[in-house]
Amino acid sequence: MSFELLTRDPQTAARCGKLLTAHGAVQTPAFMPVGTRASVKAVSPEELQECGAQIILANTYHLLQRPGPRIVERAGGLHRFMGWEGPILTDSGGYQVFSLSQHRRIGEDGVIFRSEYDGQTIHLTPELSIEVQNALGADIIMAFDECPPANAPYEYVREAVARTLRWAERSRAAHRRDDQLLFGIVQGGPYEDLRQESAQKTVALDFPGYAIGGVSVGEEKSTMYRVIERTAPLLPEDRPRYLMGVGTPEDILFAIRCGVDMFDCVLPTRNARHGYLFTSQGPVRIRNARHREDFSPLDPECGCYTCRRFTRAYLRHLYVEGEPLALRLLTLHNLYFYLALLRGVRRAIAAGRFGELWGRPAELFRLGQPSNRSS
Amino acid sequence: MSFELLTRDPQTAARCGKLLTAHGAVQTPAFMPVGTRASVKAVSPEELQECGAQIILANTYHLLQRPGPRIVERAGGLHRFMGWEGPILTDSGGYQVFSLSQHRRIGEDGVIFRSEYDGQTIHLTPELSIEVQNALGADIIMAFDECPPANAPYEYVREAVARTLRWAERSRAAHRRDDQLLFGIVQGGPYEDLRQESAQKTVALDFPGYAIGGVSVGEEKSTMYRVIERTAPLLPEDRPRYLMGVGTPEDILFAIRCGVDMFDCVLPTRNARHGYLFTSQGPVRIRNARHREDFSPLDPECGCYTCRRFTRAYLRHLYVEGEPLALRLLTLHNLYFYLALLRGVRRAIAAGRFGELWGRPAELFRLGQPSNRSS
Repeated sequence: MSFELLTRDPQTAARCGKLLTAHGAVQTPAFMPVGTRASVKAVSPEELQECGAQIILANTYHLLQRPGPRIVERAGGLHRFMGWEGPILTDSGGYQVFSLSQHRRIGEDGVIFRSEYDGQTIHLTPELSIEVQNALGADIIMAFDECPPANAPYEYVREAVARTLRWAERSRAAHRRDDQLLFGIVQGGPYEDLRQESAQKTVALDFPGYAIGGVSVGEEKSTMYRVIERTAPLLPEDRPRYLMGVGTPEDILFAIRCGVDMFDCVLPTRNARHGYLFTSQGPVRIRNARHREDFSPLDPECGCYTCRRFTRAYLRHLYVEGEPLALRLLTLHNLYFYLALLRGVRRAIAAGRFGELWGRPAELFRLGQPSNRSS
Repeated sequence: MSFELLTRDPQTAARCGKLLTAHGAVQTPAFMPVGTRASVKAVSPEELQECGAQIILANTYHLLQRPGPRIVERAGGLHRFMGWEGPILTDSGGYQVFSLSQHRRIGEDGVIFRSEYDGQTIHLTPELSIEVQNALGADIIMAFDECPPANAPYEYVREAVARTLRWAERSRAAHRRDDQLLFGIVQGGPYEDLRQESAQKTVALDFPGYAIGGVSVGEEKSTMYRVIERTAPLLPEDRPRYLMGVGTPEDILFAIRCGVDMFDCVLPTRNARHGYLFTSQGPVRIRNARHREDFSPLDPECGCYTCRRFTRAYLRHLYVEGEPLALRLLTLHNLYFYLALLRGVRRAIAAGRFGELWGRPAELFRLGQPSNRSS
């Protein structure tokens, strides 16, 4: 088995685990920084590691088009191509095809869409997605799924669930490498019976891990929380559960409470580029004029490189002037915040305190600082 | 004395020296990376140090406008503001006023120009330039000068030289800090007698160092080389000589041969951002399709972080996709190239071999690699 359950929180469904991959172990619950085009924007592999990243995510949809799987394969795979020696997860491309592509046409075989890079027509099937993911060589790869829009009517989602199940079987059949874990994806939109059906039948296919998909796509929070709460317990205890594309610190803590183990989201990295920072004192918009002469760190309780070395006044100056260093420093901080938060969560679960702390992200962040090992 | 002459090359006018500043010593000949807005674009202070930077340059013209000298002063000066604890040189703003500003009006008192940031009218005088540079707190500051365009007629340049001399006196009188070295600037365009007059009268004012200005402004190479060759010997042996805004590796080697000690230029950093790299095998344009599947480093003989860790194929991918990491990795390489070249120059001079090697930048670069200490 690739997943070992280590601790259960006595009060909630939260748990600590260890996921073994070909490039090392991942302590769960884990957050995966997003490296869309084989680079977590503005951050080097060493910096990712310093921030506490254990595993990162890359996007099949983008890498399929640029630089193309053959180049990555000839480079020796994604790890060597991008210089990240830890575990990597690639998504299947499904989500991006449905959320980014224009002129897509869905058929039983797969999806035909127009490349945003060069206008070329691409026919993405479960077989091609897996072939590409086999070539990229990530440690965890995802079945090719159909991700319907948030407002899709019941009938539409029902068909998408059925097709996603057929595509899951085809994905499994196409998979060629036993050093990669292939995860199945549960769809079903906001419809509880469809989520149930999707979960049950996906689990029947016996994947080493399961994702909950289609949750982050513009849904109401209450709907999203209900879906997470009801879907997570449908997945087997002894396999990792991955909530795709979620979310804010609060969303993540809620999902951990429901028994979810893995997360990815562009929020920390994208918000950093928009000057929006997560701190233990709440959000900071660095371009705000109040930071002009603030010579304190972004977050006085944070141990990240940015907070150890630079003031808000300097960060604001860099950001306002469009200096490229701003992107890096702000991204490093937000990633560190998320990754320390998750470390704090793991410590809280291990100490049996998660039930008491799950609503207090600032405290969990503090608990997750490397210096707080004793807490 | 702040400058110590260590070695003279037996065959050329090249020399090795040591310039003592309030933030440490600078081994000359030295190249200063340009950090226009208190940041060497895309590079952190630690990375600058790893690349071999001893001293960096920042621009008074820009910092005067954003974030403003008061903020930098309250931050504890430029060093603390930007987190660079080594020596810093600020220019006077003269060059940028004359090359960048629209609607400028030159008078005896100074220059009135319109801010490119907010349209505000700024009246930059020698007194204001020095006041701002005193507030910024660099280790070396520059007298406020008038930098005429390359094609300026004799009469125009003659007046600019006379005014620059009066401004040099006023700069000196306005200077308030004895932990900052104030350098004078020789102007005179391509006119030998004006350069002579400017040099003689600037030297008579007794500055701890002298710059040759107005050489990089769109002049013909042959004119530029003639000016360098004739002006450098007019400056006192026992003071550092700084050639402003120059240049290519070849230009720099030529000027070192003429006895110049210090350089700054945006070429390595700006060219990197345009995908143009300096290597021991000649220039590389990283976007070129020939690098798509080239899994060798940018420069196999280079010890920089970028060359140790990444392939041309990956760098090209990052660059073509507009990934912010590309700017950093390419800038790091180009800076390392320049700084290793200058280290090689210092080693060659110390070994009495510069006369033989000055026309071979690739060999000097090799000699300057940290691992080649024995050479």
